[in-house]
Amino acid sequence: MNRRDFNLSLMAAVPAVALNLRQSSLQFRVNGQRLNAHLVELAQFGRTPEGGTNRVAYSEMDLQAREFVMKLMREAKLEVSIDAAGNIVGRRAGSDSAAKPLMIGSHIDSVPQGGSYDGQVGSIGAIEVAQTIAENNVRLKHPLEVVIFQNEEGGTIGSTAMARGLTENDLNIVTNSKKTIREGIKFIGGDPDKLATVRRNKGDIAAYVELHIEQGGSLYAEKTDIGVVEGIVSVNWWEVTVEGFANHAGTTPMNQRHDALLAAAKYIDAVNRIVTSIPGRQVGTVGKIQAFPGAFNVVPGKVNTSLGLRDLDLAKVEMIFEKIQTEVRQIETITGTKFEFKKVTSSKPALTDPRLRGMIAEAAKQLGLSTKLLPSGAGHDAQEIAELCPIGMIFVPSRDGISHSPQEFSRPEDITNGGNVLLQTVMKLETVY
Amino acid sequence: MNRRDFNLSLMAAVPAVALNLRQSSLQFRVNGQRLNAHLVELAQFGRTPEGGTNRVAYSEMDLQAREFVMKLMREAKLEVSIDAAGNIVGRRAGSDSAAKPLMIGSHIDSVPQGGSYDGQVGSIGAIEVAQTIAENNVRLKHPLEVVIFQNEEGGTIGSTAMARGLTENDLNIVTNSKKTIREGIKFIGGDPDKLATVRRNKGDIAAYVELHIEQGGSLYAEKTDIGVVEGIVSVNWWEVTVEGFANHAGTTPMNQRHDALLAAAKYIDAVNRIVTSIPGRQVGTVGKIQAFPGAFNVVPGKVNTSLGLRDLDLAKVEMIFEKIQTEVRQIETITGTKFEFKKVTSSKPALTDPRLRGMIAEAAKQLGLSTKLLPSGAGHDAQEIAELCPIGMIFVPSRDGISHSPQEFSRPEDITNGGNVLLQTVMKLETVY
Repeated sequence: MNRRDFNLSLMAAVPAVALNLRQSSLQFRVNGQRLNAHLVELAQFGRTPEGGTNRVAYSEMDLQAREFVMKLMREAKLEVSIDAAGNIVGRRAGSDSAAKPLMIGSHIDSVPQGGSYDGQVGSIGAIEVAQTIAENNVRLKHPLEVVIFQNEEGGTIGSTAMARGLTENDLNIVTNSKKTIREGIKFIGGDPDKLATVRRNKGDIAAYVELHIEQGGSLYAEKTDIGVVEGIVSVNWWEVTVEGFANHAGTTPMNQRHDALLAAAKYIDAVNRIVTSIPGRQVGTVGKIQAFPGAFNVVPGKVNTSLGLRDLDLAKVEMIFEKIQTEVRQIETITGTKFEFKKVTSSKPALTDPRLRGMIAEAAKQLGLSTKLLPSGAGHDAQEIAELCPIGMIFVPSRDGISHSPQEFSRPEDITNGGNVLLQTVMKLETVY
Repeated sequence: MNRRDFNLSLMAAVPAVALNLRQSSLQFRVNGQRLNAHLVELAQFGRTPEGGTNRVAYSEMDLQAREFVMKLMREAKLEVSIDAAGNIVGRRAGSDSAAKPLMIGSHIDSVPQGGSYDGQVGSIGAIEVAQTIAENNVRLKHPLEVVIFQNEEGGTIGSTAMARGLTENDLNIVTNSKKTIREGIKFIGGDPDKLATVRRNKGDIAAYVELHIEQGGSLYAEKTDIGVVEGIVSVNWWEVTVEGFANHAGTTPMNQRHDALLAAAKYIDAVNRIVTSIPGRQVGTVGKIQAFPGAFNVVPGKVNTSLGLRDLDLAKVEMIFEKIQTEVRQIETITGTKFEFKKVTSSKPALTDPRLRGMIAEAAKQLGLSTKLLPSGAGHDAQEIAELCPIGMIFVPSRDGISHSPQEFSRPEDITNGGNVLLQTVMKLETVY
């Protein structure tokens, strides 16, 4: 859909307010120009010379950007508060006092030297949905909560506080802002002593839907408008140590070496070969490596490296890990080295709700948009909220799948499409949950 | 030869002084107990808790150890001086004023946290040879020069000063002592403004012979007494850069990655495969690696790594490098990355003199010792002096070939054997050069 088309459809939506909600809701459209203009305004907070955004959680720029989105929320007739964890919650009352809130939102903090779309599209998109609902004087049965979760990039901190609670260890983590999470929560207006008030129970929320840019580029490459997310993959990280024996690189014959880096190289190649030899969308990555002593003239005696495996299916992750282990035993024999794997992270896969997937796909279809079912390879606040209620995620195309970079870019029309799919999904949710 | 045997042979050598030099020289023996006792004394300067030696050039321990060896030299009736480069030169006059000096020696500086044998065996061995000659009142035709070259481990600095001269850049290098080479030369009693006086011309020296521990372990493993060194290999180092594209490790599908670390892994494996697929004693090593950004959750976009190739035959090194390049072109295509090789070091191979090899082998044979012809995979001061005169090198076994480590160890009897082969080689040189 191009800009002219959606401007026309927006105009067409105006008279619909008078009609019955069930009939008319399909004609509501977000204001795409306003949505994209707000995104551009938001990008000014922490804008970098490279055209990206440097707005790590608990920074001065984060604080200013939060003020900006709270202003937008109030313009969208939301009742704005900051919970004890520092999440911004904008609430629109519902007509049914027994109905649980529908929650939509995302985050506005960035990675260091990040882009202007990750989290921000979903945040501004959710506010725009609320504003469209307000402008159309729609009274929803459910309360609507727009939540801007704090510090997503530092480990989905705000959503974890809501779903599971933060530990003392979590609060003591020093973040990219140089503040601990505890200090950061105070800095943005929360109260780390009252975190218990932030927790929601299973069933407290009717559903959570998050709009986000895709981060893998498959929608962009395949010219698909909307990604219907199947779930957020399980993330599994291991620290890997390879022990060999350091020796003189000039004098140690090739057949007498215990070269830890040669072993690590064979391992890295094996990980890639195993992960790509199995059908599916699993990914496996070796991202870290350090060789000791790390000199031209010494056969490396030790290597620290890593393993990352992600898939929606934890059993598949385990199967791949076992295949890697089998291969590693052979590499140990060939190279005279010893490997050790220490698991440092293992998140559960968070599957989206099948009914919500159906609603998102249907909403897109009714808007004339093409869709694709795909996993989210990256973590999102939705994965934490999945412990409390059914979740759904809507992806929009991102140019070349570039993410966490100043080069991050989504076309305005794709962002508007995302906003409209989110709006229509909220409307459908009204009738189902 | 065990200790009892050489003590007996030493006693047998004493009456020989009265005989004609040609006839008697074969009966001279170094004092093995004294040689090994001096080595133990030398090891006290910079001794580490691990039993090794930490005596980097220009350190306080280096200075004290130099004082100690100068004392030993004077006891060996050598006329001791420090040249402007800081090399210690102990001279015994010859009977023929036209004869050029025979030079023997090595170095006493160590790598950081090094061992107590590298350089030290050859240094103390050369002094012991001089003392044996002095004690036996042998008047050599040639002057005998025992040289303790300064800062061998930091790049054969003292011998380079003698053979080629040091550049301004060389003098400004900051060494492991934290001093520049210029400061270090002053610290040990040299004069960086008078380096020209240190230079020798081609033909100024009759021959140079260096005793050293092997650093590859093949003599030790094969129970061979003496290594006759064929030459010092050409050392070639390249900085290698791999450019890929950094991206999110969770969201970037396997087939859309430009993983610089995967490419580097394939390269490291290829280097090993190519180097080991060709007959010969060449070695190839990848010792350094760094991945950027180097995180669990990012596909590495860049890798800095290295290549080291050594062989006595430069043409073979070039042939191997070309084979690696061919393979790298394929890796670039498969992984969507780009490699760059920047040569940072390339030393000429320094072949030993065939006549000297013969003399060393004959001396060993006459002493009842087994020999093996082998290359030196490591650099030595001899490689620099090779520009001035014929060189020879004598290796003695080193346990498991361990070098540059506190675990470095050579048996006292092997060290004594080395001293005797050096002594007999000097005697033979008298008659040839």
